[in-house]
Amino acid sequence: METIAERCKILSPCTIWLTGLSGAGKTTIAEALKKRIDEMTGSTNGTFVLDGDVVRQGLNKDLGFSAEDRTENIRRICEVSKLFALSGKICISSFISPYEKDRAFGKEIHEKEGLNFFEGYISASLEVCEGRDIKGLYKKAREGIIPNFTGVSDPYEVPENPDINIPTGDKTIQECVQQVIEFLANKGVLSAKSAYELDIEELYDLDDKLAEEAEELESIKIDEERIQFLHVLADGWAGKLKNFMNETQLLESLHYNTVTADDGEQFLQSVPITCHLTTEEMEKCQEKERIALRHKESNMVLAIIEKPTFFANRKEEISARVFGTLSKEHPKIQRIFEEGDYLVSGERLRVLSKITYEDGLDEYRLSPTQIMKIAQEKGADCIYGFQLRNPLHSGHVMLLNSTRDKLIERGYANPLLLLHPCGGWTKDDDVPLNIRMEQHQALISDGELSESQTILAIWPSPMFYAGPTEVLWHVASRLNAGVNYFIVGRDPAGIGHPELEGENLYDPFHGQKVLDLGKDKFHRTVEIMPFKVAAYNKVEKKMAFFDPSKAADFEFISGSKMRKLARDGETPPDGFMNPKGWEVLSNFYKSLSD
Amino acid sequence: METIAERCKILSPCTIWLTGLSGAGKTTIAEALKKRIDEMTGSTNGTFVLDGDVVRQGLNKDLGFSAEDRTENIRRICEVSKLFALSGKICISSFISPYEKDRAFGKEIHEKEGLNFFEGYISASLEVCEGRDIKGLYKKAREGIIPNFTGVSDPYEVPENPDINIPTGDKTIQECVQQVIEFLANKGVLSAKSAYELDIEELYDLDDKLAEEAEELESIKIDEERIQFLHVLADGWAGKLKNFMNETQLLESLHYNTVTADDGEQFLQSVPITCHLTTEEMEKCQEKERIALRHKESNMVLAIIEKPTFFANRKEEISARVFGTLSKEHPKIQRIFEEGDYLVSGERLRVLSKITYEDGLDEYRLSPTQIMKIAQEKGADCIYGFQLRNPLHSGHVMLLNSTRDKLIERGYANPLLLLHPCGGWTKDDDVPLNIRMEQHQALISDGELSESQTILAIWPSPMFYAGPTEVLWHVASRLNAGVNYFIVGRDPAGIGHPELEGENLYDPFHGQKVLDLGKDKFHRTVEIMPFKVAAYNKVEKKMAFFDPSKAADFEFISGSKMRKLARDGETPPDGFMNPKGWEVLSNFYKSLSD
Repeated sequence: METIAERCKILSPCTIWLTGLSGAGKTTIAEALKKRIDEMTGSTNGTFVLDGDVVRQGLNKDLGFSAEDRTENIRRICEVSKLFALSGKICISSFISPYEKDRAFGKEIHEKEGLNFFEGYISASLEVCEGRDIKGLYKKAREGIIPNFTGVSDPYEVPENPDINIPTGDKTIQECVQQVIEFLANKGVLSAKSAYELDIEELYDLDDKLAEEAEELESIKIDEERIQFLHVLADGWAGKLKNFMNETQLLESLHYNTVTADDGEQFLQSVPITCHLTTEEMEKCQEKERIALRHKESNMVLAIIEKPTFFANRKEEISARVFGTLSKEHPKIQRIFEEGDYLVSGERLRVLSKITYEDGLDEYRLSPTQIMKIAQEKGADCIYGFQLRNPLHSGHVMLLNSTRDKLIERGYANPLLLLHPCGGWTKDDDVPLNIRMEQHQALISDGELSESQTILAIWPSPMFYAGPTEVLWHVASRLNAGVNYFIVGRDPAGIGHPELEGENLYDPFHGQKVLDLGKDKFHRTVEIMPFKVAAYNKVEKKMAFFDPSKAADFEFISGSKMRKLARDGETPPDGFMNPKGWEVLSNFYKSLSD
Repeated sequence: METIAERCKILSPCTIWLTGLSGAGKTTIAEALKKRIDEMTGSTNGTFVLDGDVVRQGLNKDLGFSAEDRTENIRRICEVSKLFALSGKICISSFISPYEKDRAFGKEIHEKEGLNFFEGYISASLEVCEGRDIKGLYKKAREGIIPNFTGVSDPYEVPENPDINIPTGDKTIQECVQQVIEFLANKGVLSAKSAYELDIEELYDLDDKLAEEAEELESIKIDEERIQFLHVLADGWAGKLKNFMNETQLLESLHYNTVTADDGEQFLQSVPITCHLTTEEMEKCQEKERIALRHKESNMVLAIIEKPTFFANRKEEISARVFGTLSKEHPKIQRIFEEGDYLVSGERLRVLSKITYEDGLDEYRLSPTQIMKIAQEKGADCIYGFQLRNPLHSGHVMLLNSTRDKLIERGYANPLLLLHPCGGWTKDDDVPLNIRMEQHQALISDGELSESQTILAIWPSPMFYAGPTEVLWHVASRLNAGVNYFIVGRDPAGIGHPELEGENLYDPFHGQKVLDLGKDKFHRTVEIMPFKVAAYNKVEKKMAFFDPSKAADFEFISGSKMRKLARDGETPPDGFMNPKGWEVLSNFYKSLSD
């Protein structure tokens, strides 16, 4: 089962020494810990478990259970643990190891080599352990059949200052493992984050002095789409991309659908996040130490680029590679061709104010950090995301609720839906954002989607209508808000061919295929959830998952058909859409024709 | 220093046990072996060296040198070696281990766990070891200062049937390491190849019976370009791509510039290697178990595709993504739009005869395997490749010879140049292949390039004129012939914009940048060698590397300028091109105007 935690790395090999009474849960924790770290790192090579079984039957076959032999047993194991740590692994050694001095010896020889040795006390009480007595050993010890039994006929020296105390009597195995993982992360052994921690750096720098200085800088005015990209970057929606792309990042994105971050990490980034400017603007900004980006309408300074760099805006090449079409009639390609001839990046982007749109919807524009905070408050143990740019019909609602059921079946207690409409530029004939939000909110208010299990938020990116290339962006961006599951349907971000009437621009199934091919390039683990197609069942008079064996019972109501119904003031078939949601749409289209 | 050997993987963890007298070279070989395997796998995590120093000061601190203690010493080390092998590593254990029974014990406990334990006998004689006596131990042993010294006052039981005998007295360290590497490769521990062995599988299946059966199959006729792609696949020029691309491979190539092989390896593959067919052809071939590919002109059956699969030839999308242009006037895009509407792949491609062209140049069409065989015969220790589709002028020759000098400076004894003109389809105004070959051969015959240090061969792929995307293919393909260094210049595979007079279609520097961004995706290590621009120095009256501080002294003579001179029957400036080479060109253009 995936958790909110992200893929991690072993930063510093070491030994984790688990000590405790027989039956305290050492081996269970050791195995579960290994499994967890292996899952998190994506490799079984980073860890090794040393425990009684493997050692007593081999290396220490010659030793018994006298105090002397116990000491020699532990001495050798400490030495072998050290060798494993030296070899680059996290060695998880799980042994009763009753004597303080033996454990101290382990720490000493590790530290001599500059290695960490963490003493982990598996602190179940004798009563708890004896109560469990799974192997019947305590019984035999009490009966004198087993001599020198720790806790019964041999002492156990409780660690006075263990590095970590793991009370298996009070916690579940998974809680104990989580505790160790967080401990290791804090100690710098693992790069793992705690469950709700995101690897997000916002670019806001709300310093008054800086804002004052910015007023004096050479500036360029940016329009709504560039403001949306700025918003994407500022909030952290593009992850480790911390500035408008420079030439190298753009080339990498165009050719490999990835970008390499400053720290060397390669992450999926399939669409260009750029800022264009005209030749005149480029010329006046060249050789400036810093330039300002101003809101085209309000003239407010939104951001500063330090040490700006400029390069050619190769509109044709970008368009061809991103959209996979030769047509200049594509709605987004048309806009690209209207851009300035240069692109600007720079050493550092500092955003001077929260980006707002004053359209009554700003409260929905949550950053990844804000979304994760809400997820934490709601106690979510996974987040599933859904991207949309259309009103929600009852088929969508079925899909969202059935995905929740599926996640609960998999063992999650509290999956959270991130209902995440695209809030940036869309083509003219799409339903406007405010109407879509009102429609989505109506469904939530009416209880079709549970308010407590849903976050409705606006994603600030513009649309591209770039099909397979764009769906990669839809998913990768949401990973930054901790999304673990993402629902992807047929023909995501697809449109009709701009020049060939009646033809799709993209193969409807290529989005899912290209996502599948890119799964090792995402910076966090994500599973793509299948999108079951729902259609209107004319017999049952409601939306239902399409059953090909009864194809004739179903009627497909496309987005354009739906818009036409609304425009014509007609009512859709019963059960197609929540009535309050339909009212929103219908009123909007009525207002257009007034 | 890179060698011809390729990046390898550890397939099967194990213990390599090095036994031998003191001074035989065990530790030296162990360390050199670890270093070599780490270099080959690109990670220090796959191996661990256990030797006397690390063990005697820790784990076996309590043991002396009596026969009993020696046995216990080795017993413990065998157990620890086994743990390391269990943990997934190659454990290299280097110990005198004089007694046969102790070594047999090691083998036994490993085999019980299903692990390999290889006994490696470091077989320097006592005389050799005592002669070396680096630490003065033999002297002390002879003087009785050290008691129980193996070979002097304690027995050494020579391995009777070691898995590998490593005679350090007769071989250099590097030769010994190479011997062990080859041994491990043969045993399936490493996927490493011996220096001259390629990971190439040719697809030829020259079985008469198969050829007979093929005559009866449903067939499609393929033209020269598809034959060239078939040739590319059959020879192994596309590495692990063993068939015309299927839909998934094509999508991966278009979106990520890679393809994932059947064995899970991801390799760089930037251009589509496909076989188109018409709707009618697709319909007649559908549901056939096998189909045949026939030569369009000779009607000969060239290949069989088993279990063929068909999918749409999305010409527009392929063109846009590969060429990065919206123009349908691009010479290769024009050809793509003339292709059939479907593409065919299948379960297996079997090529029934060597692909020949009967143009007098077939002897130059060497497969990767043939090239490597020649490299081996010539005793090359690295291969540097140069792709070209134009006649060689003196600037090229300077560059090729100076690259050789640079490689020798780096420590190679015998770098070999693979002069590798593109032999497939080129656009109409390029110089034809036979003339180019005659020109290249003239330069070699005239001694401008050393015959013994050069392989002139024809690469069967057609050109794409796809700039950065194509240069990735130029390099990746040549890696299959063992090329370690590849020279890439300005604007590789670039052309003028098909619709915008006087503009380049690609940025001249993007090829090198995109190559650099893709370097971790190549399936073998390759270094891109900088292409120093040479131009005609009007003062010195010869080609020279361009010196920007004396820019006015230089004259750039482009390919088209050169062709114009030849066409007009004019003579280029002195020193621009070898006169015999010029004669070839000049005669060709004269013959055109006749």
